[in-house]
Amino acid sequence: MSIVVSIPGVDKTNWWIEQLQGLLPAWTIRSFHDPGDVEAVTYAVVWKPKTGAFLPFPNLKAIVSLGAGIDHVLADTKLPRQIPIIRTVGTDLTQRMREYVALHVLRHHRDMPTISANQRERRWKQLVVPPATNRTVGVMGLGNLGSAAASTLSALGFETLGWSRTKRDIEGITTFTGEAGFSAFVGRCEILVCLLPLTDATTGILDGRLFTRLPRGASVINAGRGQHLVEDDLLAALDSGQLSHATLDVFHVEPLPSEHPFWTHPHITVTPHIASLIDAPTGSRIVAANLERFEREGSVPDLADAERGY
Amino acid sequence: MSIVVSIPGVDKTNWWIEQLQGLLPAWTIRSFHDPGDVEAVTYAVVWKPKTGAFLPFPNLKAIVSLGAGIDHVLADTKLPRQIPIIRTVGTDLTQRMREYVALHVLRHHRDMPTISANQRERRWKQLVVPPATNRTVGVMGLGNLGSAAASTLSALGFETLGWSRTKRDIEGITTFTGEAGFSAFVGRCEILVCLLPLTDATTGILDGRLFTRLPRGASVINAGRGQHLVEDDLLAALDSGQLSHATLDVFHVEPLPSEHPFWTHPHITVTPHIASLIDAPTGSRIVAANLERFEREGSVPDLADAERGY
Repeated sequence: MSIVVSIPGVDKTNWWIEQLQGLLPAWTIRSFHDPGDVEAVTYAVVWKPKTGAFLPFPNLKAIVSLGAGIDHVLADTKLPRQIPIIRTVGTDLTQRMREYVALHVLRHHRDMPTISANQRERRWKQLVVPPATNRTVGVMGLGNLGSAAASTLSALGFETLGWSRTKRDIEGITTFTGEAGFSAFVGRCEILVCLLPLTDATTGILDGRLFTRLPRGASVINAGRGQHLVEDDLLAALDSGQLSHATLDVFHVEPLPSEHPFWTHPHITVTPHIASLIDAPTGSRIVAANLERFEREGSVPDLADAERGY
Repeated sequence: MSIVVSIPGVDKTNWWIEQLQGLLPAWTIRSFHDPGDVEAVTYAVVWKPKTGAFLPFPNLKAIVSLGAGIDHVLADTKLPRQIPIIRTVGTDLTQRMREYVALHVLRHHRDMPTISANQRERRWKQLVVPPATNRTVGVMGLGNLGSAAASTLSALGFETLGWSRTKRDIEGITTFTGEAGFSAFVGRCEILVCLLPLTDATTGILDGRLFTRLPRGASVINAGRGQHLVEDDLLAALDSGQLSHATLDVFHVEPLPSEHPFWTHPHITVTPHIASLIDAPTGSRIVAANLERFEREGSVPDLADAERGY
């Protein structure tokens, strides 16, 4: 049994190899750049692999994505499509996303951007906002992360809506489904959170058409993927006042280039793709456990559906 | 039955008189400045009353404080001490405090002040913080607001401690009591939230002695009263690095004077006493209901203990 690891950055790759080797002493773990016997390689652990990265390995049983999304794997046009892809989720990733969504929804709800701007001008101004019980927030995407985030918002007191491609029932959440439910959902979201997987159907879903259907003055939080957002449409919606604020964790190009207008826009908060950053010690334990279980049982609960795209 | 209302600001006083009159049509409601027959006045509804404000009214049955704290009433050195004081709490006030505490604890936990500073410098830097499950937060004061805030933090995943003068049991919270439990509590709080009532015993409790007992790099959130904090001690603890950040909603002098160093300190977040601002429509309904119940039953659950100070 042999594993190859491919992650941007030599140090990161070496760290993961060392960490996984410690957790899986019976396995051979090497870098993509120095894989040894390619026929012995049965697993690949990757983040943003290069196109054709998997072609040298004829006996791959599974690919492990070092994150909840698999879009970075599917982006490989030469990907052998029959190989199962294992997502890396785990309770820590879910916990971190709950925190991020709770923090930024509360930050929009309590208008912290304005309070911070007032502090910079030494202005004491008491803004009265409704309690969360009178505020409607919506979560797009109700997978592991989205449903946990929605439940957290509901527990904080928010009137919480959820939207997904296929029907989901979550206690305390009013759910909407597919195209048919989209308008009714969007029309009520004062704060909209995008946690969708990136697929052909969701690329560019955060566009001008969606923004005009939100209540005027709504705000948007994108912790899905940069490609969900049509950037120019966001700038137009903020400039017109249709949207009041956006908090973005993901971008078309990452790191966000220093000349990008989002950095300095007064109504955009930029966070550097840290909503649910996997920390290496935790992540490696999840990956090792998934590899051992897949080897033993031929499947794991965190298996993605490559046809569906997530 | 007659009620007099005293709130700083003529407009605010008039607004409250009008609002309460609408809710209590059978009562006579007037301003402290124009009370009519002083012997008929049986209730006073007040925020920060002047010294001696109650002396003209020999037949007061109760004083209503327009807030959770009664320190602003007890500050009146000529206060007739036998008159019961009714606090104004209600679910909205509790809801708002839960939101404020959750927002600002998460903001410290996820180091948003640094992320915001990085945005201003267009710096993409992924900070890895532990999940909330590995972060210990502590709430000082476990009354209505404190216990609700502690439960909210626990539900968000934080390891949550609570400290109060008298023993409290709250599900999911490790509680500490009195002087004996203080050191053990403070020694573990990476993020400390003060929601204490202001009494002689709690005045100045957030001082250098307490700060040095917190883990190095801890942060503090004060949504109690300004007088809980020794301001110079906070500045010294931030400058030495013993504390990493402070978020303050309350101040010795409010509004915070524009020359005050807190406004521009890079590690202090100033919010303008809005943690649990009572909005007038909600507040007036709570006050009216408490007045009706007190008149009918001679007591209400929100009665304060003037001897205890809260």
